[in-house]
Amino acid sequence: MKLGVCYYPEHWPESWWPDDARRMVEVGIQYVRIAEFAWSRIEPSPGVFAWEWLDRAIATLHAAGLKVVMCTPTATPPKWLVDADPGMLAVDAHGQTRGFGSRRHYCFSSLSYRAQSARITTALGERYGQHPAVVAWQTDNEYGCHDTVVSYSTAARQGFRAWLQQRYSDIDALNMAWGTVFWSQEYRNFEEVDAPVGTVTEVTPAQRLDYQRFASDEVVAFNRIQVDILRQHSPGRDVVHNFMGFFTEFDHHALSADLDVATWDSYPLGFTQNFFLTPEEKRHYARIGHPDIASFHHDLYRGMCKGRWWVMEQQPGPVNWAQWNPAPLDGMVRLWTWQAFAHGAEVVSYFRWRQAPFAQEQMHAGLNRPDRTLDQGGLEATQVAQELRQLQAHLPTSYQQAPVALVFDFTSIWMAKIQPQGADFNAVELSFRAYSMLRQMGLDVDIVSSSADLDGYALVVLPAHLREDAALAARLANSKAQVVLGPRSGSKSEALAFPDKLPPGAFADLAGVTVQRVASLPPGLVDSVHWNDGGHTEASRWREDLACSTAAPVAVFADNRPAVTHNGSTWYTAGWLDAAGWRRVLGLAAQAAQLTVQDLPTDVRTRRCGDLQFVMNFSGSEVQLAPATHAQCLLGARDLAPQAVSIWKL
Amino acid sequence: MKLGVCYYPEHWPESWWPDDARRMVEVGIQYVRIAEFAWSRIEPSPGVFAWEWLDRAIATLHAAGLKVVMCTPTATPPKWLVDADPGMLAVDAHGQTRGFGSRRHYCFSSLSYRAQSARITTALGERYGQHPAVVAWQTDNEYGCHDTVVSYSTAARQGFRAWLQQRYSDIDALNMAWGTVFWSQEYRNFEEVDAPVGTVTEVTPAQRLDYQRFASDEVVAFNRIQVDILRQHSPGRDVVHNFMGFFTEFDHHALSADLDVATWDSYPLGFTQNFFLTPEEKRHYARIGHPDIASFHHDLYRGMCKGRWWVMEQQPGPVNWAQWNPAPLDGMVRLWTWQAFAHGAEVVSYFRWRQAPFAQEQMHAGLNRPDRTLDQGGLEATQVAQELRQLQAHLPTSYQQAPVALVFDFTSIWMAKIQPQGADFNAVELSFRAYSMLRQMGLDVDIVSSSADLDGYALVVLPAHLREDAALAARLANSKAQVVLGPRSGSKSEALAFPDKLPPGAFADLAGVTVQRVASLPPGLVDSVHWNDGGHTEASRWREDLACSTAAPVAVFADNRPAVTHNGSTWYTAGWLDAAGWRRVLGLAAQAAQLTVQDLPTDVRTRRCGDLQFVMNFSGSEVQLAPATHAQCLLGARDLAPQAVSIWKL
Amino acid sequence: MKLGVCYYPEHWPESWWPDDARRMVEVGIQYVRIAEFAWSRIEPSPGVFAWEWLDRAIATLHAAGLKVVMCTPTATPPKWLVDADPGMLAVDAHGQTRGFGSRRHYCFSSLSYRAQSARITTALGERYGQHPAVVAWQTDNEYGCHDTVVSYSTAARQGFRAWLQQRYSDIDALNMAWGTVFWSQEYRNFEEVDAPVGTVTEVTPAQRLDYQRFASDEVVAFNRIQVDILRQHSPGRDVVHNFMGFFTEFDHHALSADLDVATWDSYPLGFTQNFFLTPEEKRHYARIGHPDIASFHHDLYRGMCKGRWWVMEQQPGPVNWAQWNPAPLDGMVRLWTWQAFAHGAEVVSYFRWRQAPFAQEQMHAGLNRPDRTLDQGGLEATQVAQELRQLQAHLPTSYQQAPVALVFDFTSIWMAKIQPQGADFNAVELSFRAYSMLRQMGLDVDIVSSSADLDGYALVVLPAHLREDAALAARLANSKAQVVLGPRSGSKSEALAFPDKLPPGAFADLAGVTVQRVASLPPGLVDSVHWNDGGHTEASRWREDLACSTAAPVAVFADNRPAVTHNGSTWYTAGWLDAAGWRRVLGLAAQAAQLTVQDLPTDVRTRRCGDLQFVMNFSGSEVQLAPATHAQCLLGARDLAPQAVSIWKL
Repeated sequence: MKLGVCYYPEHWPESWWPDDARRMVEVGIQYVRIAEFAWSRIEPSPGVFAWEWLDRAIATLHAAGLKVVMCTPTATPPKWLVDADPGMLAVDAHGQTRGFGSRRHYCFSSLSYRAQSARITTALGERYGQHPAVVAWQTDNEYGCHDTVVSYSTAARQGFRAWLQQRYSDIDALNMAWGTVFWSQEYRNFEEVDAPVGTVTEVTPAQRLDYQRFASDEVVAFNRIQVDILRQHSPGRDVVHNFMGFFTEFDHHALSADLDVATWDSYPLGFTQNFFLTPEEKRHYARIGHPDIASFHHDLYRGMCKGRWWVMEQQPGPVNWAQWNPAPLDGMVRLWTWQAFAHGAEVVSYFRWRQAPFAQEQMHAGLNRPDRTLDQGGLEATQVAQELRQLQAHLPTSYQQAPVALVFDFTSIWMAKIQPQGADFNAVELSFRAYSMLRQMGLDVDIVSSSADLDGYALVVLPAHLREDAALAARLANSKAQVVLGPRSGSKSEALAFPDKLPPGAFADLAGVTVQRVASLPPGLVDSVHWNDGGHTEASRWREDLACSTAAPVAVFADNRPAVTHNGSTWYTAGWLDAAGWRRVLGLAAQAAQLTVQDLPTDVRTRRCGDLQFVMNFSGSEVQLAPATHAQCLLGARDLAPQAVSIWKL
Repeated sequence: MKLGVCYYPEHWPESWWPDDARRMVEVGIQYVRIAEFAWSRIEPSPGVFAWEWLDRAIATLHAAGLKVVMCTPTATPPKWLVDADPGMLAVDAHGQTRGFGSRRHYCFSSLSYRAQSARITTALGERYGQHPAVVAWQTDNEYGCHDTVVSYSTAARQGFRAWLQQRYSDIDALNMAWGTVFWSQEYRNFEEVDAPVGTVTEVTPAQRLDYQRFASDEVVAFNRIQVDILRQHSPGRDVVHNFMGFFTEFDHHALSADLDVATWDSYPLGFTQNFFLTPEEKRHYARIGHPDIASFHHDLYRGMCKGRWWVMEQQPGPVNWAQWNPAPLDGMVRLWTWQAFAHGAEVVSYFRWRQAPFAQEQMHAGLNRPDRTLDQGGLEATQVAQELRQLQAHLPTSYQQAPVALVFDFTSIWMAKIQPQGADFNAVELSFRAYSMLRQMGLDVDIVSSSADLDGYALVVLPAHLREDAALAARLANSKAQVVLGPRSGSKSEALAFPDKLPPGAFADLAGVTVQRVASLPPGLVDSVHWNDGGHTEASRWREDLACSTAAPVAVFADNRPAVTHNGSTWYTAGWLDAAGWRRVLGLAAQAAQLTVQDLPTDVRTRRCGDLQFVMNFSGSEVQLAPATHAQCLLGARDLAPQAVSIWKL
Repeated sequence: MKLGVCYYPEHWPESWWPDDARRMVEVGIQYVRIAEFAWSRIEPSPGVFAWEWLDRAIATLHAAGLKVVMCTPTATPPKWLVDADPGMLAVDAHGQTRGFGSRRHYCFSSLSYRAQSARITTALGERYGQHPAVVAWQTDNEYGCHDTVVSYSTAARQGFRAWLQQRYSDIDALNMAWGTVFWSQEYRNFEEVDAPVGTVTEVTPAQRLDYQRFASDEVVAFNRIQVDILRQHSPGRDVVHNFMGFFTEFDHHALSADLDVATWDSYPLGFTQNFFLTPEEKRHYARIGHPDIASFHHDLYRGMCKGRWWVMEQQPGPVNWAQWNPAPLDGMVRLWTWQAFAHGAEVVSYFRWRQAPFAQEQMHAGLNRPDRTLDQGGLEATQVAQELRQLQAHLPTSYQQAPVALVFDFTSIWMAKIQPQGADFNAVELSFRAYSMLRQMGLDVDIVSSSADLDGYALVVLPAHLREDAALAARLANSKAQVVLGPRSGSKSEALAFPDKLPPGAFADLAGVTVQRVASLPPGLVDSVHWNDGGHTEASRWREDLACSTAAPVAVFADNRPAVTHNGSTWYTAGWLDAAGWRRVLGLAAQAAQLTVQDLPTDVRTRRCGDLQFVMNFSGSEVQLAPATHAQCLLGARDLAPQAVSIWKL
């Protein structure tokens, strides 16, 4: 549990660097990430390298006792490189080239840019790979940011054809998988196939899914080239990438397989404004952030690299890039930092040391204001560092598996996005809503891939696993866990078609139901869900008509058709449940799993990490909460002020 | 009154075909539409035809006693054809080519594609034109779907210039008609004229109108080529096209002049979600469909081909293409089918036999589920077939003219779209609202073109006849009918300019008013309409200041200016009336026309067909309704459950 | 105080002209603007001029005693010119050429079009420059209309590079000013720089600002060419341009420096519908127009050319170009005309003499209907002319400086638009809201540029002066005026970066505060503002955390941080205040300035012009209001009916 910071020495007078390093240490920072976007300063003209400033910057940090996380600068190829090779640029769905002038202006499929990326990575690796200050490497920055995964460049179209040839070998196999007999879309060879774009109406869904898979694979391939070079030139250092919140355009599990540590960039207020929350939630959480946004990602990324994960960028104050950019309440930067540690982070690194007075992010706060005074975030970071030192003896050395697993499957997310069937069927939101209810029930959650080992979990939740997954179904059938399946589970084959039998396909035996019909519900059309044990909740957006083979309803819709069913240890939800509905089905499953459920006060969350128990108050009121067991209070108290945290040794 | 189904043998294993045919007969199907999008299976490579599978499919259906409706597959040219002639593709308003990958990827103006269309039509006509199973031909599919009428391709631009040359002969005539002296837009020759697109601000409205007329004529010309070929090769068979709901981009009256039967594709739930209904209506009718959407089109298409019309595609369950796709209530498929027969349909054909498990429409229900079991729609179709057999002796052999004619003029619709003057002036909606009120008043309606014979109608309603139409005005003056004119009647010349005298132009003598000023009203700005006989209603969106020459007000606005006027047998409405306002003016006109008006219970409709009287309950409550006369109940009863229908012999 | 009208003789039969001229005189018109868009009639083919019709039109007007305002027709280059030089067209942000078919289809940076513009201006100047009827020239029409200031054509890109070279001389200076070290955006020479468009995400803000400055300069340069030619060929005549409401894409102060008279086009109802008012305001003012929209622009344009200004186009009835186009209430055309005179207009010219029955503006009312009868606007213009004659002896000969100056800075507007930081931070609206409150307080306002002489003002308000402006700060420090600074004042350097010290930068000493942090507030997130003297108001959209050096709070936010501060004679507002908040801070400042404040009845306004006092009732109720002094009533009375005006001699 250590603190870091993102630093751009090239943005500041060199005379400031020693003081910056000194003050970082003073704050309690141990890791400094640098060189992230510095290509034009490292190589100001083709083949002309200017290492000296970077050498001195690293030396300055090293001299102060700081550890350096080096970055490859490939998210920002310089102008001379773009001018020399305009074909490296991505092309959008309207056929427009996505040009120079900001960042991420490259196409992952450009082979020439991959060569440039390898060249600059090699140069950096050769120069700094063995530097004693360098402890880790970050590849590129935020793959996928600004919708950059999918490109329709010539390079991408050619890459897609090769990828299809690889996947299907035979064009007839492709025609069969995609169902091209529909609407006379049959291909005679792979050269006839094009990117799924610019069509008169909806394109073949299987073609879109394969294009998404291809685009995801291109990101993985691009990253792997850098990883391989860095491992060769900088042995013993961690290779990491910084993922971004709610970005699902490429398969993070696949990319993480090449990394040592999964890191992510945590901006709770920005995500609260820009994503799927309701207007009421956006208002209510404007200055706090939805309490489960950060934790959702903490638990997701912890599942990527055998439990090793960092926050690479922690929001330190107002940002500049959301529709609206409110300021966090005092105490939130500290609370977010402790929240990350509660979920098992190795390092929490703030973005950025000092607010830049110029360019695109000049309205993005740092730990320091542009005038070199500590901003509120800097004060709170200092406090956390002090608290960490106090707690040093008690910090956990191992992470403990959570009792609940939530399966998050990128392919399923893509399937729902390609084929929502109702304009508001958002599989990421559905996963988040289920997750959030588990957290409100006081349950700790591991978010895992569909191929994860499920041993040891008492409860496994699949909120939006559209992809038919026979292997997973088999593992679930053999597990001792209670299983909760969301609507549309198993409703799509790998080719985004119906499964061979009616949905939930491979999960049908587990669930004991088949889906006879589905309906998406327009806004305001709500179905009531009546529970066997009394009371009712509501469903909106989606409902299914089930036929029960071996399952029994535990709740029914207004027309008496099953809404939630129970079959052995499996629960199936035939609609988009509201929070109260999720509470009931997850409560039933948790009870069957013999898990203790605690309805936490509004906007309060708990988390176990090693033998420490964290209690965090995101609400605007004082609350009283402590572990039921006789536990030692290491930080805070039973009475928790707003934005306060307490830590208990169990 | 017969049932049909849309079938795609190429989507299924050949081994299933005989069972499918047998089960179609079992359900009570008599007509089967095939080959609609099968070009790539019929001609897998240029000039290489694979007829055998289609021969066998037809033979299988024929052997089961089914009649075949053959389609030309020109809505889906195969990839090899597009690759060989990319110039055949349409171009959108942003200059982007609308490419391969879905359907309708061709420009109506492409002469090379017209030749390809003729070639494949000839090949099909030669092979199956005399086949005993083949009773009808459908040309292409849903002209205009996915906004495909208007294209800005090179072919279209060249075609437009030739069309203008033909229309105006002399460039000065065009300059005069378009008013190009305005903003220095004068042309020196036809080669200087371009498509009305890509301009800095609003383009000359007359130019847009002519482009719409041209585009409409291109659709008619494209279709006529196929019709001529089919008549030559398949004499004695009906040639039909399947129109789509609320598509008004080309003149359906003009195209229908070349057909034997007008057919249309009836998707009440999809249209309810995607068109102009209010959010409240979208919610209320989500699982029923607005009761007048299907009947509006039934009455419209009955007016196209001397009364001969079919439903070519009847919604059988949830669809996939609306923003939201709810499931129809049980009973709706049966009710929609009877509703079509009540309005005089010869055939109601369901789309489709079985839900396809792959490709774009995999979420579109069929009569059967993908697993070959009958879905709810299939069960209800079976019931209708049984009922039809029971009623066989009583089915009407002739259709009876309705007492009310509603004039629907495509050119007027275009005029209002090009020049709405207020963002929510939608002439299609205005026509629909007037129609719906007539239906709620228990009146049967014929929707007719502006050149239709109006003899025998007691009441003629022109809700949105913006086009000044001296010929129609003369016929109305000579008719015995009461006439109701909506706002903006006669306000536009053929060149989308002011008429020579103030609006309503040629209708001014009839109405006894002139329009001194018009105003569109922003949302929330409502004018009250006070009726001479007491009470008031409201106007929104639009109002006019009238000067009465010979007319007398029957209602006035808050400022005491006339809102609704009466002159002899003509009524003029100077605003966008609410439902209550339509009820009053239509009630006054109906009374003057000595028509019996009955305010039907909410969401209940009646329809006379031959000597049968239908009563249909679209509401959620049981209602009691029967013809006032001593009539024999053939089906159902006076007490009508929700979604039930009763049929009475008068 | 004279009346004019816009007339297009080329739109009408020549036989109508004499009668039109006679009737103009009858109405009381003295000025007639002509030839505005007549290029294709003046030069129907390249180099072939057809002057005769225009000679006769001018002669006809002249014979009737009318004065002529001639226009250059450069807003509408004819088709033959565009065909000969397609490179003259502008290009939009998506790379699409903005073509022929409406108006303003040219790029200001096209050197070839500048030559054409000079050629036709010279031809007109040579022919009519000395004509005795011609009293003024209007250049082009409504620069910037239809978003035409910014273009991304090749000509514009080249022009931008040259402009940058001129501004920065050295590429390192540009790199420093723009902060290109951020995201590796450094340039090695000016040829590497491109237009700020088509990037993956947000482009460098300084680059956008410079592109806006460049584009603005191009408009000024384009206009200056015409001005220079006209001054040479038509000495002694006024050269004017007609600006448009709420268009801020170019610097009107800079362009006006070349003009004799600033004129503008006043469409209160259209602006009310199309701009930033709330839905409730749009409804409430639908038929009146917000009372301060016209006056805001009157006061703005009076500040451009040493007090000389006209209304070149006055809305005479419903228009055609807003989303909705309601009709003004009877009396509004007269009230708007008197409102313009109350603010000091020399001429109010109505657009247009007669409604055109064809082309784009056929739904735009004129003083006459298409059938040559006077419309309501014509009747009201006639009344004003009569009243002007009655008051002739009393009309003021000099204008009196207002007690309040509001600083309006185009660069600041651009800065806020480029970097809003919250989606609804609209600097034009902020300026308008402050202005409107001053007007509701009965205060007369001069809207001035940031370089204006501030002598004699008791109160200076800077609602949205984001640009750090040391010169202005110095003048304010030396002035005796009370100063009110809005949020974000001085927060941006000339290069759209942070000022050297924290905001408000150069204004910091004046205000006695520094801004520690800013936050934009999402919809619904409201902060309360508690005033020292009791009561509270609200802030939304924006708030700042201030540190007070020498200032004292006069109001605080809920968290007790300063919301409004006072320092000597300067007031600083740290948030987006509601109307009540503006009332309080402006009231405090006005009190300190010893200005008499009068809370006018709702929708009533007063204005002093010379020694006349105007009272105008925009409300729907009768009000009683008269100057407190013993004043002579020249027009109207103390009791003011809705839409009435009274004029008092002080």
